[in-house]
Amino acid sequence: MKAYTKHQTTTKQLIFVGLLCVFTITLSCKKQTSMATDEDGATNAIVEKNDIQRIEPLNWWVGFKNPSLQLLVHQPNISEWTPNISYQGVSIEKVHKADSPNYLFIDLNIAETTKPGQFNIVFKKENSEDLIHTYELKPRQKPADDFIGFDSSDAIYLITPDRFANSNPENDIMKSMKDTSLDRTDGYARHGGDIKGITNNLDYIQDLGFTAIWPCPLLTNDMPQGSYHGYAITDYYEIDPRFGTMEDYLELSSELSEKGMKLIMDQVANHCGVEHWWMKDFPFKDWINHQEHYENNYENWEGSKAIKTNHRRTTNQDIYASKSDKRNMNEGWFVSAMPDLNQRNPFMANYTIQNSIWWIETANLGGIRQDTYPYPDKDFMSRWAGEIMNEYPNFNIVGEEWTSNPLLIAYWQEGNANKDGYNSNLKSPMDFAMQEKIVKGINEDEAWSTGLIEIYRALANDFIYASPKDIMVFPDNHDMSRIFTQLHGNITHTKMALSYILTLPRIPQIYYGTEILMHDFDKPGDHGLIRSDFPGGWQGDAINAFTGEGLSYEQKDMQSFLRKILNYRKGSKAIHEGKTVHFAPEDAVYVLFRIEGDETVVHIMNKNDAPVELELSRFEEVGLEGKTLKNITTDAEVVWKDKFVLKEKGTTLLTTKL
Amino acid sequence: MKAYTKHQTTTKQLIFVGLLCVFTITLSCKKQTSMATDEDGATNAIVEKNDIQRIEPLNWWVGFKNPSLQLLVHQPNISEWTPNISYQGVSIEKVHKADSPNYLFIDLNIAETTKPGQFNIVFKKENSEDLIHTYELKPRQKPADDFIGFDSSDAIYLITPDRFANSNPENDIMKSMKDTSLDRTDGYARHGGDIKGITNNLDYIQDLGFTAIWPCPLLTNDMPQGSYHGYAITDYYEIDPRFGTMEDYLELSSELSEKGMKLIMDQVANHCGVEHWWMKDFPFKDWINHQEHYENNYENWEGSKAIKTNHRRTTNQDIYASKSDKRNMNEGWFVSAMPDLNQRNPFMANYTIQNSIWWIETANLGGIRQDTYPYPDKDFMSRWAGEIMNEYPNFNIVGEEWTSNPLLIAYWQEGNANKDGYNSNLKSPMDFAMQEKIVKGINEDEAWSTGLIEIYRALANDFIYASPKDIMVFPDNHDMSRIFTQLHGNITHTKMALSYILTLPRIPQIYYGTEILMHDFDKPGDHGLIRSDFPGGWQGDAINAFTGEGLSYEQKDMQSFLRKILNYRKGSKAIHEGKTVHFAPEDAVYVLFRIEGDETVVHIMNKNDAPVELELSRFEEVGLEGKTLKNITTDAEVVWKDKFVLKEKGTTLLTTKL
Repeated sequence: MKAYTKHQTTTKQLIFVGLLCVFTITLSCKKQTSMATDEDGATNAIVEKNDIQRIEPLNWWVGFKNPSLQLLVHQPNISEWTPNISYQGVSIEKVHKADSPNYLFIDLNIAETTKPGQFNIVFKKENSEDLIHTYELKPRQKPADDFIGFDSSDAIYLITPDRFANSNPENDIMKSMKDTSLDRTDGYARHGGDIKGITNNLDYIQDLGFTAIWPCPLLTNDMPQGSYHGYAITDYYEIDPRFGTMEDYLELSSELSEKGMKLIMDQVANHCGVEHWWMKDFPFKDWINHQEHYENNYENWEGSKAIKTNHRRTTNQDIYASKSDKRNMNEGWFVSAMPDLNQRNPFMANYTIQNSIWWIETANLGGIRQDTYPYPDKDFMSRWAGEIMNEYPNFNIVGEEWTSNPLLIAYWQEGNANKDGYNSNLKSPMDFAMQEKIVKGINEDEAWSTGLIEIYRALANDFIYASPKDIMVFPDNHDMSRIFTQLHGNITHTKMALSYILTLPRIPQIYYGTEILMHDFDKPGDHGLIRSDFPGGWQGDAINAFTGEGLSYEQKDMQSFLRKILNYRKGSKAIHEGKTVHFAPEDAVYVLFRIEGDETVVHIMNKNDAPVELELSRFEEVGLEGKTLKNITTDAEVVWKDKFVLKEKGTTLLTTKL
Repeated sequence: MKAYTKHQTTTKQLIFVGLLCVFTITLSCKKQTSMATDEDGATNAIVEKNDIQRIEPLNWWVGFKNPSLQLLVHQPNISEWTPNISYQGVSIEKVHKADSPNYLFIDLNIAETTKPGQFNIVFKKENSEDLIHTYELKPRQKPADDFIGFDSSDAIYLITPDRFANSNPENDIMKSMKDTSLDRTDGYARHGGDIKGITNNLDYIQDLGFTAIWPCPLLTNDMPQGSYHGYAITDYYEIDPRFGTMEDYLELSSELSEKGMKLIMDQVANHCGVEHWWMKDFPFKDWINHQEHYENNYENWEGSKAIKTNHRRTTNQDIYASKSDKRNMNEGWFVSAMPDLNQRNPFMANYTIQNSIWWIETANLGGIRQDTYPYPDKDFMSRWAGEIMNEYPNFNIVGEEWTSNPLLIAYWQEGNANKDGYNSNLKSPMDFAMQEKIVKGINEDEAWSTGLIEIYRALANDFIYASPKDIMVFPDNHDMSRIFTQLHGNITHTKMALSYILTLPRIPQIYYGTEILMHDFDKPGDHGLIRSDFPGGWQGDAINAFTGEGLSYEQKDMQSFLRKILNYRKGSKAIHEGKTVHFAPEDAVYVLFRIEGDETVVHIMNKNDAPVELELSRFEEVGLEGKTLKNITTDAEVVWKDKFVLKEKGTTLLTTKL
């Protein structure tokens, strides 16, 4: 905390400028000289050298609560060398040899008083010239408390970066990389979208009313196939060159900051890509799960059933689960191209935690989305989130468990009174349960126990959650048929789903293209099709959703519908943190209220085709009688008195804020 | 407690004899003289009189923890009279007038030292002759701790008394009662079954291996239609004469006690029958819910939508439920023939609690089943169960909520850490969720997420329950299509369901006739058909399931199958309270283990038609390798080594207890 005392009076803008400066320093690390402090704290020039292939984290910071840092050093036969550091406040606590001679793990202690600067790590060996690696401890960008994670006041735009917009055609193909596909007609090849494509279209996203973006992983996936999706990471410290550069990513972050928007990074603790650099030289015998099997079959690797996860995720909670099922669940590989990392190896655990913190601090993140959340060792996951939240108390992390069982969702949320004592330290689980019921309830015919009642009952389950408003809800995502397809191309129904999601006590996430009714009718659920190109993202696209050129009436109407709601939602305390009251659906009408002070938001879902009159006396307890309300999507005003006429099937969103 | 100190060294048999004596005293209350104690504790003869139409409870006991007793007195203009009691230890604390002049509620305090005996309640009024009612405080039958409720060591046989066996044709029609139907061809008329019919067939039930019976309500239902089912009670202190007499009920209880079996009474706190005696003279304006509406429409009463419950049971837990929905749920009538009792009226509350205790003590109950459990006021239900459990710490109550949502089941179980602080004091909720998944899982084709995995995942939800083994599970009940029908007449599948239920960490309940494959194929779910006559229960029945006469091979085989398992279960600590380990279904085989000390029970469900080999190495952690196991249903022995061959689709139940 002390490290940035001097910045505390600066404005946001100054912080932003400072940030750029820090980035400039980062990016200039190839310079041969820099500044460092000697033992008396005086600043001296040191000679920068990089004799070591790889030291990770690439740099670190002064001023963390946790004074420990564990460096991974990778270099042929480095275990024969002894590292030395001479820098005030930094001491080597322990040096660990690994199973491979080519690794060292160095435990550093960084005292609270340590000043930012560069120093050399000098590796010594008898009769050999020293190997020198210049390492940097940076000053922190801003107070830890100012890393504000996404919350229920946000609306998140989820993007598949390869498919959103291609602003830099130069980086579409990288000949040095294994996947050189570039074919927009192939849903599983690369299409060329990149970080610049997102950055250049932030105005569009912001204008729609979103306050945060979650791009699928942008780190290097140097895989021979399907590299576009990003979940087979082969270098945890590098932006995939086909998406852009570290500068591009930091520019995206700073542009977002400038707009008051948040950047959520998609991280993967469970597995890496099988082409990850360490797969050819494992530091330890237990660096990944089923490592021996992999090493024995390396030449013709296709995996085998024996090493795959059983995906039986309930074993994480089940008090009757067999040990073998639990082990298979957590240690099995997700797919044969994605080795399962062994977080029970303490060096792997530290590596992953430090990597997450490195990205938060480097890219000024506003949140992390953790992939395949229930698959890694759950005690590790608790420690991982705990260490992050300890450093950044106002940060947020959302974990993906694809379950329709609210018991499991509740289990993973921080503050849940789990009988086994487990505390995830995770504020935000995902609400696949609610998503499923919204689709089911809207699609189903109305009857005593089908239709809207399904949605009502799903929301009634909130009584078990430690904090419903911190759960992420969504109409669909990058792994699921698009909402417009799930709702059989019914625009009215799609609007119902979207407006409901945006009114719930939740953190809403919307997938790119939902606003223009993107769909996967041709092959529902096909991953390539779900992740179709956003029209206008490529030069020469006949349709341009950014400008509206070529969009159908219905597409523009949906854009406008979402824009209205999202922009209202931005300033709506009632939606962000208001009280919720809902009334059991009757006669195919479901009414939900969000209330905070003078602001009441009314959400009505009506499934009657013919006009119906809603008797308002039933809602007396909400206290709206005689008040004037505004329709958020049409701006029409209406007086809440006696009866409210619902002219046709659809969603109605009203507010007392005129 | 002191009251029966002298009995503490008596054997069970002596208690049983004592019990009969107490019953004899109860039944001889029409005698005109009896014994009472004067103020010095000396025993004197008093003259018995019964000038008052109705005082309830009919009698009480000395020695309860709670010294309070509230008498309901019903007599024309009784409010003009003042009651007096002169009996050592008994004092009138308060006399409450009601809204009707024909009621008094008298609060008595019964001091710990009070001796059992009779005394007169003398009602005085100026210029009138005293009205005298002789009241009795009985000695308690046995120590309160010895009222042992049903638990996971029990297996419960559920009976619809009108349809099980008719041992006394004399009581089939009672001309003084409103429903004089008697027609075995009409599923909604009375068929004549009675308490004697149960008592006379207890050997059959015990031989099957059941340890408890739950007959549907036996109290008077003097209703014009459908009186057979018992849930529209018109007198809470009287056995329906068509089922028999109080003597018959007490005989049933004592015969069960003699066999070491338990009697579970089906009670209804939520509603009474519209022909209940108090419906023509309500003590209070708020004795029932929607009372004014009823009184205004009494002449042509058919109920109306306005007074019906909305059945939206989630409002009991839902933090967002509107007040009006909650009110409609709890205060609405179940059906128009069943007035909703207002337990928020403190006199109604006391009446119901005392009635339950009266029956426990009078009939030596081994448990209560509470009907429509989530419909009454939930704070009252907590108090109700709490007061019962306070008096009988080892007793048990099961509450019926028909929900497939484990969250609601968990909420109702005592010991659940409910966020709203609610504590039900209820040990045993019902597991409709598991029932549903067992049927679904068995019926469905096997695939990645269908079939046996549904059952496995349902059991995995046990992690949230305060005490899984205290939850009641069942293949069906008197309100639901019979299990053989739900499983489409598949005997193999029915055996799977039954053996699984009987092996689970639960309290199993089986509906009468399940053992002979009773079904409702002709009109699935039809209540009349579900509650068909048990063959052999009526004189002249062509088929007799008690003796086996006329049963098909399949029916006898199912009887034998259940008899084997139930009788094994009786002595199986592993099933009653053992550790549970199950393995995720693979290749259509699901294996569950119950383990306690040396006893391991193995339950295997196999849905493969062709023979399969089960690799036993997967189950290594259970430690059975090399052991000899016995098949519980066939007595065949097998060595658990390397592989276990499953010859055909079906259930296999093994034990290490040879």
